[in-house]
Amino acid sequence: MRNFLEPGSVAIIGAPRKTGSDTYNGVEMMLRYGYQGRIFPINPKADKICGLKVYPSITDVPETADLAVISLGRDHLLPAFKDCIQAGIRSVIIISQGFADADGIGKKLQAEIVKLARESGTRIIGPNTMGVLNNFQNFTTAFIDLNKPDKVPPVSLVAQTGLIQVGSQDFSYHAWGKALDLGNASDVDFVDALEYFETDPQTQVIVLHMEGIIRGRDFLKAASRISVNKPIIIYKTGRTKGGARAAISHTASLVGEDEINDAAFRRAGIIRVKNASELRDAIRSLVRLEDMAGPRLGILTPTGAGGIMAVDACEDFGLTIGKLPEGLASKLKQGIPDWVHIGNPVDIWPVGMLGGSYSQAFKIALMELLKSPSIDGVLAMTVNVHSHLHKGIDVVEAVRAARIEAGNRKPIAMWIYGEHTGSILERYESIDGVACFDSIDQAMQGLSFCYRYHQIRNRSLSVQRRFPYKRELAESLLQKGRERKVLLGEDALALLSVFGIPAIQGKLAGTWKEIQAAADMLSYPLVFKLSGDAFLHKSEWGGVVTGIHNKGELHRAFQDMKKNVRERNPMLKIGFQVQEQAKGKELLLGLKRDHQFGHILACGFGGIYTEIFKDISRELVPVSRREAEKMLSSLKIHPLLKGVRGEAGVDWEGLLDIVERLSFLAAEVPDIAELDINPLMADASGCAAVDARILW
Amino acid sequence: MRNFLEPGSVAIIGAPRKTGSDTYNGVEMMLRYGYQGRIFPINPKADKICGLKVYPSITDVPETADLAVISLGRDHLLPAFKDCIQAGIRSVIIISQGFADADGIGKKLQAEIVKLARESGTRIIGPNTMGVLNNFQNFTTAFIDLNKPDKVPPVSLVAQTGLIQVGSQDFSYHAWGKALDLGNASDVDFVDALEYFETDPQTQVIVLHMEGIIRGRDFLKAASRISVNKPIIIYKTGRTKGGARAAISHTASLVGEDEINDAAFRRAGIIRVKNASELRDAIRSLVRLEDMAGPRLGILTPTGAGGIMAVDACEDFGLTIGKLPEGLASKLKQGIPDWVHIGNPVDIWPVGMLGGSYSQAFKIALMELLKSPSIDGVLAMTVNVHSHLHKGIDVVEAVRAARIEAGNRKPIAMWIYGEHTGSILERYESIDGVACFDSIDQAMQGLSFCYRYHQIRNRSLSVQRRFPYKRELAESLLQKGRERKVLLGEDALALLSVFGIPAIQGKLAGTWKEIQAAADMLSYPLVFKLSGDAFLHKSEWGGVVTGIHNKGELHRAFQDMKKNVRERNPMLKIGFQVQEQAKGKELLLGLKRDHQFGHILACGFGGIYTEIFKDISRELVPVSRREAEKMLSSLKIHPLLKGVRGEAGVDWEGLLDIVERLSFLAAEVPDIAELDINPLMADASGCAAVDARILW
Repeated sequence: MRNFLEPGSVAIIGAPRKTGSDTYNGVEMMLRYGYQGRIFPINPKADKICGLKVYPSITDVPETADLAVISLGRDHLLPAFKDCIQAGIRSVIIISQGFADADGIGKKLQAEIVKLARESGTRIIGPNTMGVLNNFQNFTTAFIDLNKPDKVPPVSLVAQTGLIQVGSQDFSYHAWGKALDLGNASDVDFVDALEYFETDPQTQVIVLHMEGIIRGRDFLKAASRISVNKPIIIYKTGRTKGGARAAISHTASLVGEDEINDAAFRRAGIIRVKNASELRDAIRSLVRLEDMAGPRLGILTPTGAGGIMAVDACEDFGLTIGKLPEGLASKLKQGIPDWVHIGNPVDIWPVGMLGGSYSQAFKIALMELLKSPSIDGVLAMTVNVHSHLHKGIDVVEAVRAARIEAGNRKPIAMWIYGEHTGSILERYESIDGVACFDSIDQAMQGLSFCYRYHQIRNRSLSVQRRFPYKRELAESLLQKGRERKVLLGEDALALLSVFGIPAIQGKLAGTWKEIQAAADMLSYPLVFKLSGDAFLHKSEWGGVVTGIHNKGELHRAFQDMKKNVRERNPMLKIGFQVQEQAKGKELLLGLKRDHQFGHILACGFGGIYTEIFKDISRELVPVSRREAEKMLSSLKIHPLLKGVRGEAGVDWEGLLDIVERLSFLAAEVPDIAELDINPLMADASGCAAVDARILW
Repeated sequence: MRNFLEPGSVAIIGAPRKTGSDTYNGVEMMLRYGYQGRIFPINPKADKICGLKVYPSITDVPETADLAVISLGRDHLLPAFKDCIQAGIRSVIIISQGFADADGIGKKLQAEIVKLARESGTRIIGPNTMGVLNNFQNFTTAFIDLNKPDKVPPVSLVAQTGLIQVGSQDFSYHAWGKALDLGNASDVDFVDALEYFETDPQTQVIVLHMEGIIRGRDFLKAASRISVNKPIIIYKTGRTKGGARAAISHTASLVGEDEINDAAFRRAGIIRVKNASELRDAIRSLVRLEDMAGPRLGILTPTGAGGIMAVDACEDFGLTIGKLPEGLASKLKQGIPDWVHIGNPVDIWPVGMLGGSYSQAFKIALMELLKSPSIDGVLAMTVNVHSHLHKGIDVVEAVRAARIEAGNRKPIAMWIYGEHTGSILERYESIDGVACFDSIDQAMQGLSFCYRYHQIRNRSLSVQRRFPYKRELAESLLQKGRERKVLLGEDALALLSVFGIPAIQGKLAGTWKEIQAAADMLSYPLVFKLSGDAFLHKSEWGGVVTGIHNKGELHRAFQDMKKNVRERNPMLKIGFQVQEQAKGKELLLGLKRDHQFGHILACGFGGIYTEIFKDISRELVPVSRREAEKMLSSLKIHPLLKGVRGEAGVDWEGLLDIVERLSFLAAEVPDIAELDINPLMADASGCAAVDARILW
């Protein structure tokens, strides 16, 4: 990766003879950007480009360049690439479009190139890329004449586009330190890039723009490790392409591609943003501000209206308004009328006007907020007016002094309104640990990122709890399931039981006599169901009757069900199942195996409203007890599970146990594709699976 | 209002002698801002301020000023205000703080001033205000030295703060045309301001910043009328203060203050924004762009990644990607390789690069998108690079030409990324009907505002349908309700029946014998309930037993219930009710009377999950059939109401009828405070109220 980002010499294959407007000449761009390494333009039809000696082929260059950059039409690519290998070059950027991004021919061509690369130990970035950028070395492979930034922040980008390099002012904090456009990501991918930035001393914050997941498990492993030391922010696009349309089980239909990404990023400690504006603010926060140890804010405002706006934003971003520090009110109220109210938000304008110095009041308030043990960070607003009539309004030095005197590193997010003179923001940001945002809401979100990263840095990794179980019992059921690709009803419930997940044991019966016998051993009300592999979705066959109160109703259900099936398919083997009717809340529990990230565990509200309310929580396996607790606590039905208005909740510990056991099952049987427990009935006396299906 | 915003002469009471930095001298500010009217400073201790003759009292001024601006400490306010009245001044702005914004004494003082104003026909803006701004006349009463804007857009502001005037660049499109800070809004309020801006030719877009509703009904009436001609945007802050904590009924607890505001603003055709950034973008859209007649967009992008981001944003803001115009692909593909794919989003970069002219390709694509009947508006992105090497990338003239040649007024929202040179945005915005936004998401939201305003402009007003009903029957029940402040159970259901809302008629019974007799006339399963005014919340008394299948179970329920009540209160009069058990979906229907806006009708998911999922739709009464349809269609349970997977839905027309009848009931009985129908059971055969309560 160092050859890509810090090359000592670069060969540019396909540099045009012409330079100047609209020629997109890579040699010209690289020189203009100030690259100090050796450049070897390759073009059989030219002698000199921008004053540099041109070679007819890469094999003619007298040294082995660290890096080759190819921008040729796709029909000319393969021979040029082979020449690179022959010349001993092991790092190649392919700018050209028209490969896997285009059509079948392009896809085949790309595969061929990747094969050659693997055989020769060559690494490729691209094709279909703008390449790399390293502002610490004035190095770019872009075919656009980019402006060099004045300031180079320690923020690096891995993207699947050049857009975010070109639009560095739109997506970043001033600029990027280093950037890679992976393009089609035929070879070098997110994992390679993460590993480079992990140990790169010039990178403190890592930003990913991702369109599709590549090497999911490795990606999570690297990101989990790195995110403890360097914040990783992801801007995942293509959110709206649902990947779960063809799902068979409830769980699968409720765990779409984007929910899986969410769960995976969360698990890896990656901060996800939704759009460019959030990305910019997240970077700004994580570059400029320290972690925030808690959610409790102090708000400093020159207007009551601004305080109200901040309180709204506070709730939007999951933060809280801290307790007003003791003594702050009396300190501020010295010499001003009694009617001036001091609270948090601290409205500083009347204090400043009536007390004689706005900046002095600002300084005292900010310092006391920072010092207070009940405040984790501060959102401070102030006005900027350029006029010479308002020297007293400038609070830059007040902020600096308050910060120094407070003597700690709590984050200060500022919003400066009024006149937009660029330098005012720079003056505030000359103070260590201060970040300026474009609005109250953005400042608030900025602080929420600081709090989020604090949680990420201090998270503990989840470990799978192990449970004893009878392997031979499990094996025989699993063998049956793997053969048939499915386990339904009693079989599925039996496997769950082996793993210690309680199930309502019903009785299987073929004839009316057997049904009667089964019913005699159970207590009414009963549930009567069809049984057999043919009935994957029983309700479509009219195959579930609940609330049966006596033998008469049971017989009617038996007759109807038999008739229903016979009418549709006279040859089908019919079995039946008699169960006691379970009481309690209907929950859903399930697993889905994702081809990138492995098993996802889902739990939530079950029954007929499952798909309506989608009150489902999702986590990557393994799910520890603490995570199980978090999952269930995040549900809307959580109050009902815990019990409300004197009504008893469900057996909480038992439910947590079941979640952990299901996670263990997934770990033990990694080839399960989908698993549904729906419903799992839960009340104060315990939880039990009523129906289940498992797919391979 | 003209005296406030367009005064020919102004008296400034309380102008300090000193001028210069940190004196906040209103006379100095007004002169610096370029006000051309006559200014009369009032100060008994000064002769001249800023070269102007100073009068000791307003009564000494030789003419009656159009407007007086008072900024005195609150202890000096009353005599100064009386002087104004005596001097014949009928428009007064009170800048000073320390009134209803501060404490009890301030509140009383404010009330006294308002009383004097009413008696004398004087109007007041404030107290606790920055006053007014009129950029068309260089007039401001601000005590801050504001910058005069270069461009004055036809956008006016009514706010409850000066923050938004001072922060015009943060909250508006460049600046405000006119602005009012209502401060404590002791007299002049939103309705007065709306009525002025309604006919003000310099105002095309009206922006409201509101902290609290004042004169709700009048406000809605004015806004409803005006919003058809001029867009009204509201930034309502203080969202998070729930006002429904003490509610008795389900409906009231589900219809909080902010939901009522939402319903009211929607009814009045007011566009609500959530924060400063949305406000800025909404203004920009509605000033620069035409209405958008539908949700179908064309997307023009120089990068595939940008197209994906736009598709994400499209779904976020409820818009859709339109069909690619016929013939566009073939027009763009002339002379370029076959593998270049043309779709919507249109990725214009490969077309431009391979075809030889980016700007030409951009023009063709934009023009065809605008012309197409399958496209309602366009989101176009392009890159700005200042370098002389990229003359061909500039598409300003391409956009201008495409717009002219397309010959229609569909909105074009643009996002220009790359180098942020201020003038580039101005160049694009020199084209009529083009607006530039800071990001893809903001451009998308901008277009969504254009579509929203199209819907507002074309909405039809809702009219209450009338139903015949037996007034004398209603009157006797209402009399009972008004006396007791409550109607429960059978009484409440009876009143609903009078208004044609079907109710499950149960039987009232006092003794076991009566209960048996009632049961004999009904079919099992039955529901057995406590009855009587003492049992407002029956479930707290164990007063509802459902699913009774035989006389044995009925007797047990009777015994248990009697015992429960006797144990808690041996003296209580107990009654019972026997009902047939209704089947179907449990819905909730209700009314809540808001002191500002009158009755709100709520409908949604009922039963024990009501508060958990809050799947509730809310509308101001009157609710027409079309609105009832919209309300029910917006519910998450809507698919279940319509029927899914072969399962029958509910009696849809019957349900709509009930909603309309409930709205009619509210119109006929305007003094009802809260009304709950919970549950209303609905299935294919019909809907019926099972339990209800009405509060006065």
